[in-house]
Amino acid sequence: MEKVRLSVGEVRELAEAVLARHGLSPDHVKAVAETVIAGERDECASHGVYRLLVCVHTIQAGKVALDAEPAIIDLAPSLVRADARGGFAQLAFNRAKPLLVEKARRTGIAALAVNNCVHFAALWPEVEEVTREGLVALAFTPSHAWVAPAGGTRPLLGTNPIAFGWPRPGSNPFVFDFATSAVARGEIELHRREGRPIPEGWGVDAEGNATTDAEAAMAGAMLTFGGHKGSALSLMVELIAGPLIGDMTSTESLAADAGAKASPLGGELILAIDPKGFLGALAADHLERAERLFEAMAAQGARLPSQRRYEARARSLAEGVCVPAKLIQDINALLD
Amino acid sequence: MEKVRLSVGEVRELAEAVLARHGLSPDHVKAVAETVIAGERDECASHGVYRLLVCVHTIQAGKVALDAEPAIIDLAPSLVRADARGGFAQLAFNRAKPLLVEKARRTGIAALAVNNCVHFAALWPEVEEVTREGLVALAFTPSHAWVAPAGGTRPLLGTNPIAFGWPRPGSNPFVFDFATSAVARGEIELHRREGRPIPEGWGVDAEGNATTDAEAAMAGAMLTFGGHKGSALSLMVELIAGPLIGDMTSTESLAADAGAKASPLGGELILAIDPKGFLGALAADHLERAERLFEAMAAQGARLPSQRRYEARARSLAEGVCVPAKLIQDINALLD
Repeated sequence: MEKVRLSVGEVRELAEAVLARHGLSPDHVKAVAETVIAGERDECASHGVYRLLVCVHTIQAGKVALDAEPAIIDLAPSLVRADARGGFAQLAFNRAKPLLVEKARRTGIAALAVNNCVHFAALWPEVEEVTREGLVALAFTPSHAWVAPAGGTRPLLGTNPIAFGWPRPGSNPFVFDFATSAVARGEIELHRREGRPIPEGWGVDAEGNATTDAEAAMAGAMLTFGGHKGSALSLMVELIAGPLIGDMTSTESLAADAGAKASPLGGELILAIDPKGFLGALAADHLERAERLFEAMAAQGARLPSQRRYEARARSLAEGVCVPAKLIQDINALLD
Repeated sequence: MEKVRLSVGEVRELAEAVLARHGLSPDHVKAVAETVIAGERDECASHGVYRLLVCVHTIQAGKVALDAEPAIIDLAPSLVRADARGGFAQLAFNRAKPLLVEKARRTGIAALAVNNCVHFAALWPEVEEVTREGLVALAFTPSHAWVAPAGGTRPLLGTNPIAFGWPRPGSNPFVFDFATSAVARGEIELHRREGRPIPEGWGVDAEGNATTDAEAAMAGAMLTFGGHKGSALSLMVELIAGPLIGDMTSTESLAADAGAKASPLGGELILAIDPKGFLGALAADHLERAERLFEAMAAQGARLPSQRRYEARARSLAEGVCVPAKLIQDINALLD
């Protein structure tokens, strides 16, 4: 496949130009571009510049408020609500983050609900930002109902990612972010675009039968990772980032989409915990003890989930990123 | 296998007699017996009366403070610490629960760290108790370092369970509780006791090779569920229920055990979230919306994680429980 090399700065220019061209307000352009750049820079192909296509499609479908001004609501001593008012989630998160951090530091643990947002990004950029404040972070979001529960055959759950971040003094944070589906939907979509079969265990067709056809799986149902345990976690995400925060389930999001194939609508739940709340002056000692765990993993050849991304990040910042030429062509067409 | 039928009342008498006979103070007897009874009643064989053997072994190894009086510390507006002072975890949890619930109601979300405890029970009884207060609950605990991380070959992580509870008005709560290892260690131990081989994927031998021999897996390393995703979750549990609360990792717990093969030492983290904090007067409406999810699962034949346990509970309360005669014989021997 022919590839094009771009510097991270060129990725930024491209992303910002596309988003501005399609009517996003300047604050939204900046916030949304940041996650697209981060995805491409860290070599998460399914969350990089490819998402510009998804993003523009969602805009063109009329599913996103282009200049929504998020409302930040102080709900309780440890709860914040960011009402995105129909805009993309990123700006609402950015605006609410300072209050989330302040509350976590004051009360020990705090939760942020981002409501009424359009969501298309990975969760790790948000989790990573919270860890940069010295806090432990967890994030959850439903998506569209594309995934069958364990023991079922029809879509009910979203890909429902879970992200976690742990601050590491003097080092990049330990972060993971994974779909509770066997793979991210973007992975299946990339296989479909490239005409490649998907491995078994990723999905079933519209009749509930196992399939290796990407198109058939997208028309049928995806499967969760880890059998009934992954399915239970996915249902948890539906509940705590859906009804618990007064926002849509994946089924409701897909219904609201009404066939437009736009990005999921709904909410996101982010938890922040201050290690100093439990540990006081001993926090540094105990965080240092956590480093023994990371070292012991490395010593037996096990890779930390975020390690590959940070290596990609360093490489991208030094050498730029490689994007399929066909994808760049598709993105450039959005500038016409 | 010959079985003996006992009423739940008889299970209680047996459990309390064994625990008292081995020197636990009356408050600890009551608290510990409660979880053993709950496990047997709900047909969780590996967490039922079988655990009395584990419990007594831990007592005889001198690893538990028999009459420890837990200290409850109000750390921050949303944080509670229960210092179990070397006793079993149950009493410390019971004593701290009211403050956890009060804080969650006042601030929206709260966390309880149970520290310096001996832990041998499932997490679902605690999670279920929190949901009985109308709160959403999450619980985590490390164990002993028995499990290899994804990509590794040697024990580093514990079986590190995650439990979640969701209150359902007028119904038993939705609860799950699973080890992030492929199975609970108690399952492998039951296979070993019964001389049965274990399925592939449960563990590796001391050289890091796949094995179906229960004894070899217990001497080698268990594996996580769900590959690198399960491994990431297990590491999260190590971090948030270990260093974050100033307590032991699974590796430290196993080192402190020093070959005694007693129950894990260390801590437990329990989160409680009040739906009313996010939803106010609309909480009932949104909890009702969650019921649509449970109904949709049932409609496609998918079983809720807690459903089998509640069915077992109803059966046990009506008809009593069936325990292997050999196990009852072993437990009765503890009364001599």
